[in-house]
Amino acid sequence: MQILKNHHLPKGFEALGKSIGVKKSGKPDFAVIYSDKLCNAAAVYTKNAVKGAPLAITKEHLKDGKAQAIVINAGIANVCTGKKGVQDAGTTAKLAAKELNIKTTDVLVASTGVIGAYLPMDKIKKGVKGIKKQLSKKHKAAEAILTTDLIEKEVYVKEDNFTIGAIAKGSGMIHPNMATMLCFIQTDADIPSNKLNMMLKKSVDKSFNMVSVDMDTSTSDMCILMANGYAGEVNESKFQKALDFVCVELAKKIAADGEGATKLIEVIVKNTKDKNSAKKLAKAIVSSNLFKCAVYGNDPNWGRIFGAMGNSGAKFDESKVDVYFADKAIVKNGVSINFNCKEIKKIMGKKELKILVDLKEGKEKATAYGCDMTEDYIKINADYHT
Amino acid sequence: MQILKNHHLPKGFEALGKSIGVKKSGKPDFAVIYSDKLCNAAAVYTKNAVKGAPLAITKEHLKDGKAQAIVINAGIANVCTGKKGVQDAGTTAKLAAKELNIKTTDVLVASTGVIGAYLPMDKIKKGVKGIKKQLSKKHKAAEAILTTDLIEKEVYVKEDNFTIGAIAKGSGMIHPNMATMLCFIQTDADIPSNKLNMMLKKSVDKSFNMVSVDMDTSTSDMCILMANGYAGEVNESKFQKALDFVCVELAKKIAADGEGATKLIEVIVKNTKDKNSAKKLAKAIVSSNLFKCAVYGNDPNWGRIFGAMGNSGAKFDESKVDVYFADKAIVKNGVSINFNCKEIKKIMGKKELKILVDLKEGKEKATAYGCDMTEDYIKINADYHT
Repeated sequence: MQILKNHHLPKGFEALGKSIGVKKSGKPDFAVIYSDKLCNAAAVYTKNAVKGAPLAITKEHLKDGKAQAIVINAGIANVCTGKKGVQDAGTTAKLAAKELNIKTTDVLVASTGVIGAYLPMDKIKKGVKGIKKQLSKKHKAAEAILTTDLIEKEVYVKEDNFTIGAIAKGSGMIHPNMATMLCFIQTDADIPSNKLNMMLKKSVDKSFNMVSVDMDTSTSDMCILMANGYAGEVNESKFQKALDFVCVELAKKIAADGEGATKLIEVIVKNTKDKNSAKKLAKAIVSSNLFKCAVYGNDPNWGRIFGAMGNSGAKFDESKVDVYFADKAIVKNGVSINFNCKEIKKIMGKKELKILVDLKEGKEKATAYGCDMTEDYIKINADYHT
Repeated sequence: MQILKNHHLPKGFEALGKSIGVKKSGKPDFAVIYSDKLCNAAAVYTKNAVKGAPLAITKEHLKDGKAQAIVINAGIANVCTGKKGVQDAGTTAKLAAKELNIKTTDVLVASTGVIGAYLPMDKIKKGVKGIKKQLSKKHKAAEAILTTDLIEKEVYVKEDNFTIGAIAKGSGMIHPNMATMLCFIQTDADIPSNKLNMMLKKSVDKSFNMVSVDMDTSTSDMCILMANGYAGEVNESKFQKALDFVCVELAKKIAADGEGATKLIEVIVKNTKDKNSAKKLAKAIVSSNLFKCAVYGNDPNWGRIFGAMGNSGAKFDESKVDVYFADKAIVKNGVSINFNCKEIKKIMGKKELKILVDLKEGKEKATAYGCDMTEDYIKINADYHT
């Protein structure tokens, strides 16, 4: 598998990112992704019971497993906006469809930003005008979908005869107000929608569903995969692998860009009896505020790892557990070993920290991604004003 | 019901708090609570799968529903200490029993502090010497059980013919490393152990189980109720009410003393279809990092309340939800009303914030207690070093 440079959209795809004035900052806040050929498409949505209006429209339009364009705005999430919100999302799709000369039901919509405000439909209307001509291979879509994110998140890979490209935004599930996790994946592979759906779910389970910057899940999370088929049929297992890679890379970028974060944490829990326990344990560790604070302070506080594991709901024998920071053992069989604290603190001081927890009970494994917790997380979320 | 002054132990109870050198600070770190008459007793323990060694001994000794003394140390939690840890906890009970001239199985033990270290048994041995003579009505037990807590937590009430006294420590479930939630309740009421157990569970469900300063549950949480019977039989419903009051008051004190907290948050969710939904929703709101940050910043960010509710697992109709800050409406039927932001910010600036969420779907209700999240929470937990 070859990792391509940014902006390398698969054949037939073009995009745009521009400012239409939804964000007060004047930064790009409107994006379109378009395929010149109708795509098979699949999507995964937020599990939050409160769902944004755009999700209703996108779900409806994806019923036939087909899509040709996605229209995204940042700044306002169009959530908790009642019937008018759903109407506005529908109108956005309709306006874009007209400009692109495609069917309204082939246009998907996504929004991210403040909850409880209506979309400024006058600005959307103006923004949609002329989009067809503004589409290009060189685009600002990755920038235009950001909110509190600090960095653009893109991944492009080539394998065999196919290419996958993707842009994402969000810092995990940490911004139910100002943000959301959004991911838009394009490929030229030819794969039917129902298979695309299965493959996307698999990849999302390993990647975005294993990220936690916070315990909060946004109301607008969405991950969409569009496949226009230009590359023809593909080797399925290679495609799945490439898709996994793309999703995991974006998940890591999201975790590393968590609000206020100074480092990426990767927690691997291995040798569990079942997959679900491995997932629960890895997510519990990476989600623990106390553990995240300890990582920020470069404190090899393994008691917090055990505390979090005990709260995970998974069953395990604590007297068997080994814990490693990078490749250095800290705990063997549930009790502390005489580790070199200075050495461990040095390991913890790096931009990426890998924690390995070995349960020695079975053969299953899971990895979760997160970030440390800092004063800046508090500042960002306390000083943001409604 | 009459609220008594601090240190007003019920008839037959005495206590002590002193320093035996477990805490490096030299502050009181050892407490004994004793009844001159054998008590009926009941307990509720942590739900964390990783449990401290003292819990094993206390559970064992409480099998017969009887107890006469509790020995508590702060500084070291005696958790993740294997067989030696359980042995040490047992030895502590045995030593105290000898000094107090009672049966070993009538002594309960509790520890709070660092995980992964062994109890300094030499210091415990010395500390236990002469405790019988040191017991008094004027005691420092409430101080001696503290760890990172800033304030002592005691409540004493009198109703009818009975008295209830209680001390507690902890800042919710937020310190799996340096702390724990402990609560010791004494009463002179005459109630059999099995009934005491039921009553204690009821009260704990309304109070300590509705506190969240954090998502982390300690490995050593314990709440013990001892009843020596001096006051004779009591009116059960009045006793339950008084016990509820004592537990809720202590729960509030714990929430208000959460690490780094500047204010107490009380979230009432009412008119739900079932009790469980009300509990889930109230706890989800009070536990949301993002909501806690918004409260710290005096930001009436109701989107975060909806985000947290959607993540709670409870089903509800968002288009019916009303939200009040103190008695001022912010949201009606799921959408923002034109509220006076300045007025709401002023309400939020006080030391106690009451949030009312009305679902208008049924008749059930629950209240959860928590605190805001500040930079000091991060500092305390990042700068604490193993």
